[in-house]
Amino acid sequence: MTEDEIVKAIAALCDPVRSRRAVEGLSKDDIDSKGRVIIGIGDDAALWQPSRSHRSVISTDMLVEGVHFRRDTMSLEDAGWRAMAAALSDLAAMGARPVLATVALGVPAANAQGEIMELYQGIAAAARCFDIAIAGGDLSRCDLVTISITVVGEVRPSRVKRRAGAGPGDVLAVTGALGAARAGLELASQRGLVEGADGDAALQAFRRPTPRIAEGRFLGASVNVTAMMDCSDGLSTDARRLCAASDCGAVLEAIPVADSARDAGQRLGEDPEGFALAGGEDFELLVTVRARAFRYLAGRYEKRFKKKLLRVGALRKARGVEWQGAPLDLLGWDHFA
Amino acid sequence: MTEDEIVKAIAALCDPVRSRRAVEGLSKDDIDSKGRVIIGIGDDAALWQPSRSHRSVISTDMLVEGVHFRRDTMSLEDAGWRAMAAALSDLAAMGARPVLATVALGVPAANAQGEIMELYQGIAAAARCFDIAIAGGDLSRCDLVTISITVVGEVRPSRVKRRAGAGPGDVLAVTGALGAARAGLELASQRGLVEGADGDAALQAFRRPTPRIAEGRFLGASVNVTAMMDCSDGLSTDARRLCAASDCGAVLEAIPVADSARDAGQRLGEDPEGFALAGGEDFELLVTVRARAFRYLAGRYEKRFKKKLLRVGALRKARGVEWQGAPLDLLGWDHFA
Repeated sequence: MTEDEIVKAIAALCDPVRSRRAVEGLSKDDIDSKGRVIIGIGDDAALWQPSRSHRSVISTDMLVEGVHFRRDTMSLEDAGWRAMAAALSDLAAMGARPVLATVALGVPAANAQGEIMELYQGIAAAARCFDIAIAGGDLSRCDLVTISITVVGEVRPSRVKRRAGAGPGDVLAVTGALGAARAGLELASQRGLVEGADGDAALQAFRRPTPRIAEGRFLGASVNVTAMMDCSDGLSTDARRLCAASDCGAVLEAIPVADSARDAGQRLGEDPEGFALAGGEDFELLVTVRARAFRYLAGRYEKRFKKKLLRVGALRKARGVEWQGAPLDLLGWDHFA
Repeated sequence: MTEDEIVKAIAALCDPVRSRRAVEGLSKDDIDSKGRVIIGIGDDAALWQPSRSHRSVISTDMLVEGVHFRRDTMSLEDAGWRAMAAALSDLAAMGARPVLATVALGVPAANAQGEIMELYQGIAAAARCFDIAIAGGDLSRCDLVTISITVVGEVRPSRVKRRAGAGPGDVLAVTGALGAARAGLELASQRGLVEGADGDAALQAFRRPTPRIAEGRFLGASVNVTAMMDCSDGLSTDARRLCAASDCGAVLEAIPVADSARDAGQRLGEDPEGFALAGGEDFELLVTVRARAFRYLAGRYEKRFKKKLLRVGALRKARGVEWQGAPLDLLGWDHFA
């Protein structure tokens, strides 16, 4: 079973009816017995309705030492930042504004106090940077450092973006060039190579990634954005997920590779496009835009953010994601495959 | 540093101003820059205001294999139930109604799929039982099973109960007798002793504890309940915490020990009062009630729940918790002491 298949089995176990609805898209039937609409398991974040005029969004991310980060490539302070950034990125993907977070930490007993405070330095720094309150949490002993962060955001009902919603002909785009985070990981794993400005940029992307909160809210506000998710598992995996949720396929036309990833690829003798396609954790947003509106929206985006909304391809009816005339293999990250 | 001291240091790091307010009690100044009231770090759950007429409550609990449960005393299904019950208990302590939960699981790669589904059997059973939707989560490899559950509830603004709020003269009471969960743990650790009806009750309390959701909502609705929290770390620790938050002390008059705990204590040759004072994880609620109203409220409680609201003592001005003429030692559970 792949991770996606396990998630489907969990959704069926937790609530067969609701999970089917979550997959098939939001409808009037999604109003649950308590009168609240819920997008459940399967999107970047879950959505509920605390009152008629409001929508709240919630998402949880878990980082485990040895799986998501290693102490020899990243400080605990950076790991704390990274965990918060990963959680915030899911709010960005829904077009939501951050409200508050809870933090569950597991740390070894040996130097618990020091390591907790080091983790929280990074967590609190990211929280201040993206204006989210840390409202509570839990602490436990654990042989490996484990960080589990839940974030809550809010979004106007009309601005919620999901993975489902895209249609054939829509433009597929990303909020920034990809591959830098993976390049930074590779550089950090080979300390000898860590020098020069490009290395610094890749390392920064790896250790202190930026969730695209402002970009997500901007794109969420556009009626011409039909679907949105964060690109946290590599473009190949995430494009496939967005297409599957929207019941269509895509042809990729260009892979926008970050300069720092390109430079690192050269120095490491690795394909920088691979960093972008399979690397993941860049936390850029993957969006689909109605074709006739793309140019106008991209212009407004560039004016606002001083960078381009990068076209990577177009959606089509036929399922699957194609790149250079061939179906794209699944190159992304799967925890249990 | 004790766990409580670490939590204070975290609160100061995350937000010095807000954390001071959270400790000092809710006031008009608690309305944050976004116009929402927030109870932050330091109570059973955090509180925010998604819209003027609504309050949402959030709490996170983490369970780690080898720390909170051992596989030789509890199945993964029970561990899943227990994690959900612990999280729900924090909603109960705020007088809130469960709305939705997110679940982050770390499991070893070896039998990931089977263990994830086993954990979710228990999690989903508890969710159905207490009417909370599972809205999302995260999965990761982790050498030890790690369960982190975040729950969101809602409560009418006038019904929120905190740890702070009690005053001298108030009656201290619990929603049920204590010590059964700890007795069950002791029995489970010595399998030879697991037989007889009382053993079953203690084991049930240990493996499938009941969060007091209905009781919490009932007590939250009374203006005569001045403070409330869940009794998850043992009466001695939790009474001290409630008193400290309310800036007063207490004299304990009676320790209500569960029959099953008393029986197990006899068989194990251990003091059952110790189970109640230091055992924890019974998930009964600890409340303070205005003295003149206690009898009336206890009568209504008994009528509604077919069990007694048990008086354990009274609050007084002098700090500290006294039992049988002496200050009560800290016998509760502290992860890092």
